[in-house]
Amino acid sequence: MIRLLSSALLTTIPTFAAIAADAPLPTTPSAVVSAAPAQAWRVIADEDLLVMTVADGKRVVIQIAPAFAPRHVANIRALASAHWWDGTSINRVQDNYVVQWGDATEKKPLPGGLTPTTSADYVRPLTNVRLAITPFPYADPYAPATGFVDGWPMAMDGDAAWLPHCYGYVGVGRNMAPDAGTGAELYTVIGQPPRQLDRNIAVVGRVIEGMANLSSLPRGSGDLGFYTAGERKVPIVSVRLASDLPAADRPHFQVMDVASPSFAAYLKLRANRKDDFYIRPAGGVDLCNAPVPIRATPPVKARR
Amino acid sequence: MIRLLSSALLTTIPTFAAIAADAPLPTTPSAVVSAAPAQAWRVIADEDLLVMTVADGKRVVIQIAPAFAPRHVANIRALASAHWWDGTSINRVQDNYVVQWGDATEKKPLPGGLTPTTSADYVRPLTNVRLAITPFPYADPYAPATGFVDGWPMAMDGDAAWLPHCYGYVGVGRNMAPDAGTGAELYTVIGQPPRQLDRNIAVVGRVIEGMANLSSLPRGSGDLGFYTAGERKVPIVSVRLASDLPAADRPHFQVMDVASPSFAAYLKLRANRKDDFYIRPAGGVDLCNAPVPIRATPPVKARR
Repeated sequence: MIRLLSSALLTTIPTFAAIAADAPLPTTPSAVVSAAPAQAWRVIADEDLLVMTVADGKRVVIQIAPAFAPRHVANIRALASAHWWDGTSINRVQDNYVVQWGDATEKKPLPGGLTPTTSADYVRPLTNVRLAITPFPYADPYAPATGFVDGWPMAMDGDAAWLPHCYGYVGVGRNMAPDAGTGAELYTVIGQPPRQLDRNIAVVGRVIEGMANLSSLPRGSGDLGFYTAGERKVPIVSVRLASDLPAADRPHFQVMDVASPSFAAYLKLRANRKDDFYIRPAGGVDLCNAPVPIRATPPVKARR
Repeated sequence: MIRLLSSALLTTIPTFAAIAADAPLPTTPSAVVSAAPAQAWRVIADEDLLVMTVADGKRVVIQIAPAFAPRHVANIRALASAHWWDGTSINRVQDNYVVQWGDATEKKPLPGGLTPTTSADYVRPLTNVRLAITPFPYADPYAPATGFVDGWPMAMDGDAAWLPHCYGYVGVGRNMAPDAGTGAELYTVIGQPPRQLDRNIAVVGRVIEGMANLSSLPRGSGDLGFYTAGERKVPIVSVRLASDLPAADRPHFQVMDVASPSFAAYLKLRANRKDDFYIRPAGGVDLCNAPVPIRATPPVKARR
């Protein structure tokens, strides 16, 4: 069942019960994140982490979202397990828009058994998701309702839910409709969130480490920021699911539980900055400007 | 007088009267911009253009906004005319936040006669501006009203108006309040619009050419993205007002008249993408995701 609490209700949630009663209340979002207790964090599964190695061994880690883009994510896992992206490249960097990667030749055969996709995959019926919604009480120009579900921001219209195009979010390139993309051609957002792409293209995940290795790449001088003949495409050395890596090589991350008191306190402060630097709280915040906190954690077993 | 037209009124403005009646209506925002007649454009004054040359001769052009940040802009003009930024550097690049430049030593003497600033300079009374407001009908989580005035997006609360922190917008670094910055330390936004900074810091202009020369710089590894000892600060060769340059060296730009039918048509399509690629219009758009069109124009007199 979908529950959209009012903002008035939201503010009545006791936010610091888990913190020692006599500790000073954190006054910044980052202080809330630092003070969040262990029970406010959820481990991200190895199957949901894509580890991409680009030129010079630089690493980018992407969290994929099987609950919200199941067909595209199934394809992405199959492509990673087939090592399909190894030897492909980053082919497009358009300022204030996207970095895009895949097979520049558009001729590399795809592995068999990929799942067909359609534009119906751009949204997910919430009745299928069956997860609690943390409401987001601030206005959004792109969707009638917004919230957070299972560690992800969510835009919603009735029973339809979709992941928004926020900074660092990863989507699936496609040709003209009815094509909905296989998952082989991916991009990430490097500027103003292009939310006009919501429900027009599949969002499948987000970069959670190494974003600067993509966002600081030279912009392409061709149409739409594609690299031209005189410009060097950035080689992709490999892309692996963390679950396909040896245990010692797997990165580990946790995402804040969006139903936790810590997240409620974090959201409130994102919308009401008032500390040594801020003199005037906004009283609101954009959905994409309240990123769900994520932290790297040490591996369960130390590297040998 | 402030006029906030309703969105219903907005849609009744005849949008293509200036275009031949039998021409097909443009279906994309960029097609509207290409088709806009000469009378839809306003020349940006040479006094409002800041030409910054960084390492390797790369050029960045910033439009400053005297109507909305008069004291800070007066200082910025004085600093440019004194060649104060020559030999300074870009010192901070924080991913998904800002690129910041100025005097890394914090010891370079400022020119005399700079105007003192206070936090009162973060907003501008609309009664002082005396310019027509083109209303923006879509929700904004940061301000009760938004619109466009004199070529700029505007957030408003009663009589107070302020420039929003959009991608590429330029603000004035400051220390802790009550300091409001002189204008010597500047930054531009390279990610998600940090609108929480609105009314907490002065926005004074926007990058209108060469943004990629800033946004693609290597991120700094220090706190807040400052370059550390091992990292190369990016040299600033010079910063000049276009009006201080020889006529033949001045760049020329025009901004779309926000009261024009072309701008109304552009806004409507930014909020309702429906063309060969888009299958589902959003029915809304973020204030920062409807940038006022700007175009470079040939110099009035050709270079010799």
